[in-house]
Amino acid sequence: MDTKKEIKSNLEAISSLCKRRGFIFPSSELYGGINGFWDYGPMGSELKRNIRDAWWKFTVQGRTDVVGLDATIIMHPRIWEASGHASGFADPMVDCKDCKKRHRADQLCEEQGTKLIQDGKKWVLPEGTKCTQCGSKNLTEPRSFNLMFKTYVGPIEDDTSASFLRPETAQAIFAQFLNIESTSRKAVPFGVAQSGKSFRNEINPRNYTFRSREFEQMELEFFIRPDEAVELICGKVTTLADNPNLDGDPQPDWGWEVWHKYWVEQRLKWYRNVGLPADSLELYWQTKDELAHYARACVDIEYAFPFGVQELEGIAARSDFDLSQHQKFSGKNMDVMDDKLREAVMKLSDDEKAAFKAKVVAQWKEAGKDEAAAAAFVDKLFEGRYIPHVIEPSAGTDRLALALLCNAYDEEKLVDAKGKEDIRTVMHFHPSIAPVKVAVFPLVKNKPELYEKARSVFKALQQEFNCFWDETGAIGRRYRRQDEIGTPFCVTVDFDTLGEGDPSAKDTVTVRMRDSMEQVRMPIAELEGFIRKSMK
Amino acid sequence: MDTKKEIKSNLEAISSLCKRRGFIFPSSELYGGINGFWDYGPMGSELKRNIRDAWWKFTVQGRTDVVGLDATIIMHPRIWEASGHASGFADPMVDCKDCKKRHRADQLCEEQGTKLIQDGKKWVLPEGTKCTQCGSKNLTEPRSFNLMFKTYVGPIEDDTSASFLRPETAQAIFAQFLNIESTSRKAVPFGVAQSGKSFRNEINPRNYTFRSREFEQMELEFFIRPDEAVELICGKVTTLADNPNLDGDPQPDWGWEVWHKYWVEQRLKWYRNVGLPADSLELYWQTKDELAHYARACVDIEYAFPFGVQELEGIAARSDFDLSQHQKFSGKNMDVMDDKLREAVMKLSDDEKAAFKAKVVAQWKEAGKDEAAAAAFVDKLFEGRYIPHVIEPSAGTDRLALALLCNAYDEEKLVDAKGKEDIRTVMHFHPSIAPVKVAVFPLVKNKPELYEKARSVFKALQQEFNCFWDETGAIGRRYRRQDEIGTPFCVTVDFDTLGEGDPSAKDTVTVRMRDSMEQVRMPIAELEGFIRKSMK
Repeated sequence: MDTKKEIKSNLEAISSLCKRRGFIFPSSELYGGINGFWDYGPMGSELKRNIRDAWWKFTVQGRTDVVGLDATIIMHPRIWEASGHASGFADPMVDCKDCKKRHRADQLCEEQGTKLIQDGKKWVLPEGTKCTQCGSKNLTEPRSFNLMFKTYVGPIEDDTSASFLRPETAQAIFAQFLNIESTSRKAVPFGVAQSGKSFRNEINPRNYTFRSREFEQMELEFFIRPDEAVELICGKVTTLADNPNLDGDPQPDWGWEVWHKYWVEQRLKWYRNVGLPADSLELYWQTKDELAHYARACVDIEYAFPFGVQELEGIAARSDFDLSQHQKFSGKNMDVMDDKLREAVMKLSDDEKAAFKAKVVAQWKEAGKDEAAAAAFVDKLFEGRYIPHVIEPSAGTDRLALALLCNAYDEEKLVDAKGKEDIRTVMHFHPSIAPVKVAVFPLVKNKPELYEKARSVFKALQQEFNCFWDETGAIGRRYRRQDEIGTPFCVTVDFDTLGEGDPSAKDTVTVRMRDSMEQVRMPIAELEGFIRKSMK
Repeated sequence: MDTKKEIKSNLEAISSLCKRRGFIFPSSELYGGINGFWDYGPMGSELKRNIRDAWWKFTVQGRTDVVGLDATIIMHPRIWEASGHASGFADPMVDCKDCKKRHRADQLCEEQGTKLIQDGKKWVLPEGTKCTQCGSKNLTEPRSFNLMFKTYVGPIEDDTSASFLRPETAQAIFAQFLNIESTSRKAVPFGVAQSGKSFRNEINPRNYTFRSREFEQMELEFFIRPDEAVELICGKVTTLADNPNLDGDPQPDWGWEVWHKYWVEQRLKWYRNVGLPADSLELYWQTKDELAHYARACVDIEYAFPFGVQELEGIAARSDFDLSQHQKFSGKNMDVMDDKLREAVMKLSDDEKAAFKAKVVAQWKEAGKDEAAAAAFVDKLFEGRYIPHVIEPSAGTDRLALALLCNAYDEEKLVDAKGKEDIRTVMHFHPSIAPVKVAVFPLVKNKPELYEKARSVFKALQQEFNCFWDETGAIGRRYRRQDEIGTPFCVTVDFDTLGEGDPSAKDTVTVRMRDSMEQVRMPIAELEGFIRKSMK
């Protein structure tokens, strides 16, 4: 954690641009706003669409081993009992008895350089903790507050109709696992991806859109074989110590550790694709102490936001915890039948089976796990069955949008030929996620032939890309407007385009590059290919 | 209403295919389901993505006068007071005192060929109404049930923190109108589009996914000048009686009636694009009695579902009702300043102004509206200001998905060369919305050269389209699997592709057409262009 990137962005300038240029507005601002809720305006809604699409194309459509899901936000409340959210998804809350300000207890301590004390199931404030608003030490005991938004389904408001807005998209994937596995012609290893809204009733929403009460996620649950099944099928389990090639296609002998690292690499590759290079990100490997009890490993991908280095995505190896919980709570068997495993087991002699079983039971025992459970697990393996394990890359769409906005934002000092200084505000978005790909300008609007030519260029490009038409103001001013929304290319149709100047320039246009401010002359026929290529 | 299309689809067969092939699952089925909630599986999530994208491209990106918005589901509760939902968005509910079954009173009457009686603000059941479950006449009085899902924002559950899940996406557009108008460089006439989840706590969800408690909408609010402003600017107001050309670009002299009809035509054009031709749809023009008090016209676009002819979309001319309500409730001025109007007014003499004012006041008076309000409205027009009017095309994404599924579904009787009969189940989706665009098959999987060739064809197509890889089973069976999910094209790589048979067939593949079952030989290099063209 000692090589954190320099934090150079200015959140106030960025949020001001976001408001001014239609990226992000406070939700319900007309009525004074609603704390923790943000709307995406004309530019922001395109930015988010591009992020979502890029993720879906990379994660689902670009592979043969991942399928999609689009589940409801309100689900059966038992799902949150199985997942642990009903009992455990809570933050510690304290109130100042003097000024009535409400705090998240752990954050309050952190702000004062201390740490909230956990005493069994109880939280205790360290001696001397003060209210950051009024300075009083007259604070309530920390108490638990469940972050799920509650509502009632149907006309009666009672415990039987209470339901919750999902606090994550992931659980629907586990709840629909059996339906998907039996209808999609996919066999483990395969994944299920979902993107959509989630809700957490944060005590203190903060840091602009970073910690919101309503937000969007992009989650993948990638189901893999338990290592023991891999060993039976392949005769070995490849680990990171074997230095596997993570750039090529996944291999059947990969153990969970390799799959986990593979997904970390895949995710970093994707962040690079959308314009966050590896050197703008940090990997934080959670320590054994920090890991949830069922997790084997978890990596946070972090970005240096103006308010601190914070998580964009977590990639966890969650063993078979989630599907096992749903098996327990639903009473439905979550096993898959693995043909390759069954074939492999059929070739084993009884002695080989006994030796394998003894080895697994001994391993589990050494890890402090139940021997009877180990034996039952191996017996199921011998029938070709197991509950799949899972690797979970879980990303926040709004957090990424904010990181991309921070990363793109720049104020450049320009000096013109006469030595006059000027500041250019520019958003250096990668073309693939820029809200507008290309702006088209007629040089003048009072010459019908030129105007019509520009319209025809615009209409052709509009078939493929999100385009912006601007016919007012000096060309320089039009460029600057596009710089502020991060449009990578501006195309100007001028007299040369009509063949009125240099005849060889007929049907060419000026393409002005956002980042270099360079202008090049390009045939109209080449524009589409040029823009398309830039988006790769 | 006498020319309703023949209802030929079979809902049971369709919902069975939807489950079997991963289009639609009951939400939370693992826990017995949750009434009124549905999940979209691997095929369904792609179908919905395609619908959403096609709508966005047609409505937002394909125009220069519409921008997007992506607002929160939970908004400030005052919004629902302004919109009328807090007090008026309710259904009449009755309970059977004997069997305890709960009914929506209007539906209960409808099922018995009667009509619920409205007596002022009270609802009354007609004499003799029975419970459809047990036959008892022992029913409660109908009482009002608000359909908005309530939740609490922040840790305290009281009236000050009560909030609602939006019952429609439209209101966010009105609430953000000022922000969008001032940042997007758009002037009236222009529109704002939003697609996303909405929630209605239906008393009796029914008809498969048609009436769900959680659903998705695609809504456009297209803001136009009041006719009086059009008259001042253009000297006239074009009405439908003038027989305007609705296929070309919108014209500045169009009155609200023309704009409304224009959007009906645009929407029908779009439905045709996604595979619902005009003759599969019906337009229902609401009568004066049926219209909401503020609405000037409303057209329902209806489809003949297996359970009856029902609304896919409503296109309403809502005057300035919504923005005026938000002005009243927020205290913020919702006027826009219209430069063209100001310029036009500056050319008028005082006499001309007085005559115009007198005319408008007289018209309003004749329509039973307030004279003082008319005078104030004209005074604002003379300053170049007005509250925009709005045309609202509001479509249901899930309803459209269901209509497309019903429309696509077919069971074809086939007879082979030996006279053997067979039934082919096939989904005739338009290629633009088909979940999978193309499936690629290696003819055999045990010939590495052929297999690799097929993989390379697959990987190239996958860059552009959602593709399916299938290497198992006879080719005929693989075709049938794709027919059931509506894949328009199947590409088979065979020995000829490798140049092992007819040398002129090298680097060509067999393309099998879903609808005609015809097979054509095509160079690999032409595949991408062929598929792309089919999607237009």
